[in-house]
Amino acid sequence: MSSMHAVIMAGGSGTRFWPASRQTRPKQLLPLSDGAPMIRAAVERVATTCPPERVWIVTNAQQRDAILALLPAFPPAQVVVEPEARDTAPCVGLALAKVAAIDPDATVAILPADQVIEPPAEFGRMLARGAAIARDGQTLVTFGVKPSYPATGYGYVELGAALDDQTPRGFAASGFREKPDAATAEQFVQSGRFWWNTGVVVFSLQAMRAQMRRHCPELDAAVDAMQKALGAGDEGGVQAAFRSAPKTSIDFAVMEKADALAVVECTAMWDDVGSFPALARVLEGDEHRNHLSLHGGAQAVALESADNVVYAEGARTVALFGVEGLVVAAVGDAVLVCPKDRADELKKVVEQLRAEGREDLL
Amino acid sequence: MSSMHAVIMAGGSGTRFWPASRQTRPKQLLPLSDGAPMIRAAVERVATTCPPERVWIVTNAQQRDAILALLPAFPPAQVVVEPEARDTAPCVGLALAKVAAIDPDATVAILPADQVIEPPAEFGRMLARGAAIARDGQTLVTFGVKPSYPATGYGYVELGAALDDQTPRGFAASGFREKPDAATAEQFVQSGRFWWNTGVVVFSLQAMRAQMRRHCPELDAAVDAMQKALGAGDEGGVQAAFRSAPKTSIDFAVMEKADALAVVECTAMWDDVGSFPALARVLEGDEHRNHLSLHGGAQAVALESADNVVYAEGARTVALFGVEGLVVAAVGDAVLVCPKDRADELKKVVEQLRAEGREDLL
Repeated sequence: MSSMHAVIMAGGSGTRFWPASRQTRPKQLLPLSDGAPMIRAAVERVATTCPPERVWIVTNAQQRDAILALLPAFPPAQVVVEPEARDTAPCVGLALAKVAAIDPDATVAILPADQVIEPPAEFGRMLARGAAIARDGQTLVTFGVKPSYPATGYGYVELGAALDDQTPRGFAASGFREKPDAATAEQFVQSGRFWWNTGVVVFSLQAMRAQMRRHCPELDAAVDAMQKALGAGDEGGVQAAFRSAPKTSIDFAVMEKADALAVVECTAMWDDVGSFPALARVLEGDEHRNHLSLHGGAQAVALESADNVVYAEGARTVALFGVEGLVVAAVGDAVLVCPKDRADELKKVVEQLRAEGREDLL
Repeated sequence: MSSMHAVIMAGGSGTRFWPASRQTRPKQLLPLSDGAPMIRAAVERVATTCPPERVWIVTNAQQRDAILALLPAFPPAQVVVEPEARDTAPCVGLALAKVAAIDPDATVAILPADQVIEPPAEFGRMLARGAAIARDGQTLVTFGVKPSYPATGYGYVELGAALDDQTPRGFAASGFREKPDAATAEQFVQSGRFWWNTGVVVFSLQAMRAQMRRHCPELDAAVDAMQKALGAGDEGGVQAAFRSAPKTSIDFAVMEKADALAVVECTAMWDDVGSFPALARVLEGDEHRNHLSLHGGAQAVALESADNVVYAEGARTVALFGVEGLVVAAVGDAVLVCPKDRADELKKVVEQLRAEGREDLL
């Protein structure tokens, strides 16, 4: 049986957690769920499935040191640094080149670093199911969440025939659907045939390479070149090969065109924690549904207030009085106040600060 | 002509500017209007009328050092410390005992430290008018603001006959009215016979002492005793005499019962800045009526937001996005968010923090 490698994708940046997230400290480095940084939770999540020497983190040069600081026991050699941001296809390619050097017959799991999936044991059970399906050496396996509401913020995967009667359930998948409009999302949920796409993928390395070869030969050639340069210890060659890969997503380059695609039900609690209001889903609230994410000595008081999300770090106290439906975030030298229902637009604040030359706050 | 002494009453404490105001730093020490602490503005306000040696500040032991730190040029001997908080009657009595030792025929102006009155020259003109009326040696002179709306948060003074045709206008005053309910306030404004009571008072020392003697003999006796102990350099005696004075307000003890009362129109811009939303009246706003009171390097960004008040101190940035009608205050180790229309109830937050044992924040 082939060994499984886990590749944690931790190169993302984003603005929807400003002022908690900054350029040097993106979402995956934040303690958004239980107090541990998301990247650490991601590493712990795969620990039940993969031994440490088969866990990889792909990130960028800016985040490397911060990640190692948060994960003092993690082997630095297994933190793979992308030469530049080129979307996920070259990133997966680089990881596959690294894994292939050790185990060309590996089964590989690709996992976003910035999600909550709990508990780890349930996640392990679902990965094992995916790995069993991927062992045919052909099928790329995605993981889907049965929608609890017609979300317009997620991509969906369409279910085909059931693979068998095992659990977690597995289905052939007939394709992906981008974030739908509200009416389409409603249809998706009604039909019972669409699940949220978690972004977690499992495949055999050889199957993914075969699909790359068929559907995105430039990517395949780049991975070959990376692999060769790695073998020769030629770091410059690795970088050049990386830069030669098409700047596109692995979804667009391969997954959406895959010849054999399956989806396994994610039976764990899954949340992509897309913006501050998501903390209301992953954290317990008080009796008035105020959800407090407090770190490093931060405290909060919510008086005659309901349905708020507070995120604070450091020795400070946030007091809410008589307010509803707000996000209040106090981190370092910045305080943010905005309604929960506009938290998805936080990018505008970051853009405004940039326009005002406030790079120190970004 | 008798010389005028100004007595600035700066012993108050309060909760309606938390977290800017703390036990050791009440409202009058805050930079609520133009960036200068209110106490400094109060001293500058009387400088056009009284030379430095005739300006007094009455405060408590806790605030004395902070006041002197904010007013490095102010003579420490003219900061009078109340032995304990006993409302305003003993406080005025102590100030009168101090003034009498220097000038028993003085005219005295009593002024709250925690108001905005601008410009100083206009304030001086109004004080001079009051002093001219008080020169009859009988009349206690108050200062009133013609109401611009039916405020329920102010006391009112009732106008009698016009004294003459000089400006600022002066009237006999027939009495005071406590903070009215909305309907009564409406009547007050309609009638044109009620003005907001500013709390500023001018009188001849002898007239006030005569009224004390007649309407509150215990207070009068205590002031006599303070004066005697001061003359003997007996600090313990001063304190004992202060503590023997009735714990009540000068309004209740004397003003409301005065035999001759006048009111002079306050033609200056007057605001008692009772709570954070008042900053919208005394500070210019941006084009969306966001009023920013920023000190010590604090900055603010208000994006797609309107009608908010931000108060911040120190090197930090407050970002508002998509919010309306809020007070956001960030000072030291605390952040407050509450609606403007509930800012008068901030005491509840302070009480809650006290109940939680958070004396460190109070």
